[in-house]
Amino acid sequence: MSLIVQKYGGTSVANETNIKNVAQRVVRAKDEGKDVVVVLSALGDTTDVLLNMAYNINPHPQKRELDMLVSTGEQISIALLTMAIHFLGYDAVSFTASQVGILTDSVYTKARILDIKKDRIVDELKKGRIVVVAGFQGVTRDGDITTLGRGGSDTTAVALAAALGAEYCEIFTDVEGVFTADPNVVPEACKLHVVSYEEMLEMSASGAKVLQLRSVEFGRNYGVKIHVRSSFVDVSGTWVIEEDERMERAIISGVTHDKNQAKITIFDVPDKPGVAARIFQALADSHINVDMIIQNVSERGLSDISFTVDREDLPLTREVMLKVKEELKAREVHFDQDIAKVSLVGAGMKTNPGVAAAMFSALAESNINIEMISTSPIKISCIIRKEQAETAVRSLHKKFNLDRVSRPHKESIGTGSAPGSQPANGLHQESGRNE
Amino acid sequence: MSLIVQKYGGTSVANETNIKNVAQRVVRAKDEGKDVVVVLSALGDTTDVLLNMAYNINPHPQKRELDMLVSTGEQISIALLTMAIHFLGYDAVSFTASQVGILTDSVYTKARILDIKKDRIVDELKKGRIVVVAGFQGVTRDGDITTLGRGGSDTTAVALAAALGAEYCEIFTDVEGVFTADPNVVPEACKLHVVSYEEMLEMSASGAKVLQLRSVEFGRNYGVKIHVRSSFVDVSGTWVIEEDERMERAIISGVTHDKNQAKITIFDVPDKPGVAARIFQALADSHINVDMIIQNVSERGLSDISFTVDREDLPLTREVMLKVKEELKAREVHFDQDIAKVSLVGAGMKTNPGVAAAMFSALAESNINIEMISTSPIKISCIIRKEQAETAVRSLHKKFNLDRVSRPHKESIGTGSAPGSQPANGLHQESGRNE
Repeated sequence: MSLIVQKYGGTSVANETNIKNVAQRVVRAKDEGKDVVVVLSALGDTTDVLLNMAYNINPHPQKRELDMLVSTGEQISIALLTMAIHFLGYDAVSFTASQVGILTDSVYTKARILDIKKDRIVDELKKGRIVVVAGFQGVTRDGDITTLGRGGSDTTAVALAAALGAEYCEIFTDVEGVFTADPNVVPEACKLHVVSYEEMLEMSASGAKVLQLRSVEFGRNYGVKIHVRSSFVDVSGTWVIEEDERMERAIISGVTHDKNQAKITIFDVPDKPGVAARIFQALADSHINVDMIIQNVSERGLSDISFTVDREDLPLTREVMLKVKEELKAREVHFDQDIAKVSLVGAGMKTNPGVAAAMFSALAESNINIEMISTSPIKISCIIRKEQAETAVRSLHKKFNLDRVSRPHKESIGTGSAPGSQPANGLHQESGRNE
Repeated sequence: MSLIVQKYGGTSVANETNIKNVAQRVVRAKDEGKDVVVVLSALGDTTDVLLNMAYNINPHPQKRELDMLVSTGEQISIALLTMAIHFLGYDAVSFTASQVGILTDSVYTKARILDIKKDRIVDELKKGRIVVVAGFQGVTRDGDITTLGRGGSDTTAVALAAALGAEYCEIFTDVEGVFTADPNVVPEACKLHVVSYEEMLEMSASGAKVLQLRSVEFGRNYGVKIHVRSSFVDVSGTWVIEEDERMERAIISGVTHDKNQAKITIFDVPDKPGVAARIFQALADSHINVDMIIQNVSERGLSDISFTVDREDLPLTREVMLKVKEELKAREVHFDQDIAKVSLVGAGMKTNPGVAAAMFSALAESNINIEMISTSPIKISCIIRKEQAETAVRSLHKKFNLDRVSRPHKESIGTGSAPGSQPANGLHQESGRNE
């Protein structure tokens, strides 16, 4: 029997009515003859409520205890959804991450999944039960509870789909799929019907919040087809799949932006081997993810190094960098939170020169100064002033004609099956854009 | 180093301020040089809020899922208290029941502790840490989460104290100790300074809500000294300890009442061997605790059997009894929720005849009819009409001069040490009552 994994986000289970609706969706999949594993986030704003309590009690709560605390949110969801499924007359059972052995490292609040012991889930599926698993959480080999960071339930879902060999993984959320830009910023933004793992990785890494980056990595590494779709509207969303010959290669799939970044510059460090390594090793030791890095060498044998981090990591980065500054006898460290990153992502970029030039000229036409640039084969990112982010996104969306992506018929992809199991031409038509 | 276990109830951790106060108390014990294990209930009314959500979603929630749900309440408490302790600069670590291996049977919602794997706690105590454990919950050998029933955190605390060989176990609650009667009913009720395990067992079993019955059983079976005291007022409470020669033996220690009882009568069952066994085995198979039992034999070879159960077990009892009725071809089953149980408890009863007669005459003087009677060597209970419960308690309290128990000085027992480690005469004075 074919198996699917469904993940429902916090708004999808925000209240009793929504939970009952999710139960209906779950049993519909079961009625279609599928084995179903459900992964849930915490109810609505539960996590924020718990975090507020924590910070009122201790402004610097220990991360192990934070994970102990917030992991209760998902435990509440899974119990309630399982009761709702029982009420519909179906057999179901809930599990915490600890109970199904979602093993992680012990980097509390942003742990990484190391292994999944799937035996208990497989046993319950064999009994004909719907299995409901707490997302976002994991357990160390010592039995301590961890969490996977914001959006971690996506990763739980895709990792489970990978471990169980699921046909595909459905990510039910409060948006209809992945768009060419944030529709709140660009009303003309279009829903993408297919994106490759590589594109989705770049989009998630550069500000698209629809899927946690790690979940896309799992999808790519294990070939899990991911369907991002609305839990409120019953239409096909966006499929995240392997890039192959059946996909038209759009030059640009989307414009993303990220205002939760901070730029750090350390001035006048010695320009000699090992200095950059020292800085970035210190950051890595504190589990801080560094995004862009730029180094300028001055004539005096000193250099300035700039880099960006997630803004939430800024307090810790500040701590680390002030120590590094002393150690390297650097002149100064500067912290800047008023920046944004705008990015262009598209698999077709690889074979289409001139995209960078077009991007820079679009920004220049809007009088936007570029402070840092970073590129990958399918992405170009620029750091700009934060207040210009929306203007930049709109001007890039227009420059690359992303509003001309044809809006396909809603019925054109069946809601229940993956692109790989469909005739190729249907997909060709839908992603045939930006020719 | 000596070890103590402290348990704090729901009102003691109802909000952030209370949690901070509890943290202060905990570190004070640590400062006194003790190893400290803390057991917590859920914050205030968390459990009720969660249960309401559950019943709104499914009027008959599966008990396994109920336990999955409500066990989150204690997990929230332990994380928050541990953060509060950290904030005071002390080392502490929180654990769920699953993490410290509080093994139970799988009777969800009222599981019994089978074993405690204390290694993890001992390891953390050796590191100098305060250990904070979730009360009320347990885990089956299969890793499923269970709960121990209302008041179950008391049992967690005393069971941990037994397993760890604690010097004593402090139960911090919202009352100052065990009283001669419910002070809400009898304003003249006096705090008892010492009661024996046997007396406390009878009092808990007959309506005193201050300690869960199971916790007192653990205390007695493993000789754990229990100190029931207020978490809001810093005075000595009630010590529950072994009855020995140092204790004055009061004839009556207290009057208890319980309005959460129901009486069931099955009429005209065959008066032959095996019939009563059939009824009570069926109830036991459904995990229903039966309290009093009375059987009357009629002349026709038929008998009527009456018994009482906790009112919360009434729906299940009804189900079981209607089946039993069919099977035994009994004439009728009658269910009565309008009853109460009043009880007199006192270790001195054993050597003082005439207590029962005095009790019955006190009730008769108040025009209260007795429907059922049950006795133990240190307890007499009567079933009466529910609306007469308060009158009965007041009249018994007066009849046995319980308002004349001398109120001892608050300082007379140190707040931090058990009676066994004190000179005996201090205790003599305090429990020298009812002469």
